[in-house]
Amino acid sequence: MECSCSSLLSSNSMETIYSTQFSSFKPLFDLKSIPKLTSFKGISAKACYDTCVPKKGLSSIDEQQLGAADLVYHVNGKINPSFLTRDLRILDGFDDEYGGVIVDSERLPANPNVFASMLRFSVSHWKAKEKKAIWLKLPVEKSDLVPVAVKQGFEYHHAEKGYVMLTYWLPEGPSMLPANASHQVGVGGFVVNDKNEVLVVQEKHCAPSFVGLWKIPTGFIDESEEIYAGAVREVKEETGIDTEFLEVVAFRHVHNVAFEKSDLFFICMLKPLSTRIIVDGHEIQAAKWMPLIEFVEQPFIQQDSMFKKVIDICIARLGGCYCGLSVHQLPSRFDGKISTLYYNCIDN
Amino acid sequence: MECSCSSLLSSNSMETIYSTQFSSFKPLFDLKSIPKLTSFKGISAKACYDTCVPKKGLSSIDEQQLGAADLVYHVNGKINPSFLTRDLRILDGFDDEYGGVIVDSERLPANPNVFASMLRFSVSHWKAKEKKAIWLKLPVEKSDLVPVAVKQGFEYHHAEKGYVMLTYWLPEGPSMLPANASHQVGVGGFVVNDKNEVLVVQEKHCAPSFVGLWKIPTGFIDESEEIYAGAVREVKEETGIDTEFLEVVAFRHVHNVAFEKSDLFFICMLKPLSTRIIVDGHEIQAAKWMPLIEFVEQPFIQQDSMFKKVIDICIARLGGCYCGLSVHQLPSRFDGKISTLYYNCIDN
Repeated sequence: MECSCSSLLSSNSMETIYSTQFSSFKPLFDLKSIPKLTSFKGISAKACYDTCVPKKGLSSIDEQQLGAADLVYHVNGKINPSFLTRDLRILDGFDDEYGGVIVDSERLPANPNVFASMLRFSVSHWKAKEKKAIWLKLPVEKSDLVPVAVKQGFEYHHAEKGYVMLTYWLPEGPSMLPANASHQVGVGGFVVNDKNEVLVVQEKHCAPSFVGLWKIPTGFIDESEEIYAGAVREVKEETGIDTEFLEVVAFRHVHNVAFEKSDLFFICMLKPLSTRIIVDGHEIQAAKWMPLIEFVEQPFIQQDSMFKKVIDICIARLGGCYCGLSVHQLPSRFDGKISTLYYNCIDN
Repeated sequence: MECSCSSLLSSNSMETIYSTQFSSFKPLFDLKSIPKLTSFKGISAKACYDTCVPKKGLSSIDEQQLGAADLVYHVNGKINPSFLTRDLRILDGFDDEYGGVIVDSERLPANPNVFASMLRFSVSHWKAKEKKAIWLKLPVEKSDLVPVAVKQGFEYHHAEKGYVMLTYWLPEGPSMLPANASHQVGVGGFVVNDKNEVLVVQEKHCAPSFVGLWKIPTGFIDESEEIYAGAVREVKEETGIDTEFLEVVAFRHVHNVAFEKSDLFFICMLKPLSTRIIVDGHEIQAAKWMPLIEFVEQPFIQQDSMFKKVIDICIARLGGCYCGLSVHQLPSRFDGKISTLYYNCIDN
């Protein structure tokens, strides 16, 4: 299996950037000496022509200047003006370090028919070059190209607000492409003050079973946000309380939560640095410091094995009978990133 | 912030399933007494008609039987036969428990023009009903509908191999829809036998900096797979060695690894249950039991702060000086799921 820590397709991995020889239009062949073509893999129509009567020199033709009417070729005895103007161009792209090609999203043709021809030819070309995969990122403004790519065998890989990523696995056999992100990540902040009161909230918008219950502040971490930072941020946003991250005391793993994805939820112990609550009225109905005993004795905690265990752990941590995972930033040479490592203390 | 543990849009959350009154074609109005329509929000063209001359009774019309030529209406003095045959139908959908609508992917029209009209009318209808969001899942065979939806203001939310999900946030203000999965999750198995040898592999396909290095077996967990199960599986697949999961000793968090997503990597301590190595020739170049000292002394470990710390932790765990997070399965009533909780032992 691929190494899960490698930076696949991040900007770091694009070690070889190239523009193909076809990025500005240059015909594949010298037309004056062109042999009889019976079929050309990738070209949208079979072509066989006996005479070629180019109107312009074709050693170098600028794409923008080239109009379909400018070139007239006799193909199979019929005039096919668009044949050599569009179909024999490769889409611009870059090599990745795994033998794949990343199509340049910024140089895609807008016209779906032009794109269809170029895509077909490009796929054929890259297959002949024994490339492994094609990554095709279509920005939202190029949504017309989506059905074109799908009909030529591209598969959806993932999508974000501004684009959809499609892929094409070229070799025989099952695709070896890495999967998309599979997990959402949430954090909860367990904050207890020196009066043994825990910081709790009632949410405004929540599942019916949660209405009216007092719970610890929770939420998803933001894109590229650290778990320790997300926990502190959520508590701050929901209650106005400043905190310092101490440890991840436990984490929960559950599946099929949303869109068949999984959920990792990190329960974090935070130390309060302020006392005055300011409620985020957009999300939160109310927030307060609640005596720990009263919080623990809520029926929804007492009757739920998982909630009860989590609170037991937090209380043990408060009492010094439990050690969770503290956070450390460490550089790593193999991918050049500073990453965050969560681990327990080592007894000497 | 939304509760990260709620099962949003899973099959459990579809508490109310309904078919709209428009799922089989029924005209919106009784045409004989129809008032003058000046504009109708959601209809693709303004319509105002003085006389309606239906050819057939319209109290109930089967969609398949209805052809555009069968109904002739005078609209603004002009004949518009398609006006009432297509545009006044709502797409089939279900309510979710958050005030949103989930469009039924299995009952989408195939024709993009029909879909465009229905979508426009449906959005208008749901907006009038004060719905919060529309979830539109377009299977790959309906890729023609993607640009239609995008041009009507739908945004990409996420995609998987077989579909792309688009959303439309209806109220004013920023979208409150939950984000897509943001993390890939990997596991590594640290397996040491009773001769103090660690199980290591050399990968066939890896980043250039990894070629020839001996590393612990690693890989991504599968969809809906448990971390503890994934670690055991990866070791088994790569080396043929059976193991038993003991603990998560630490985890690493890094960002911008692939497609701007983040990576969580769980280092797992596993106890070997067999000794005979069988290499997975597809992925692995070689595998062996390597003396722990020799493994630790590899330059790429010694020179890398993160790798060195991880190995130090594993060795401490072997020596009984370290306690990681062990795995427990606990039911939870609030979402009806059995979930996996990883936590340390509590000192009594």
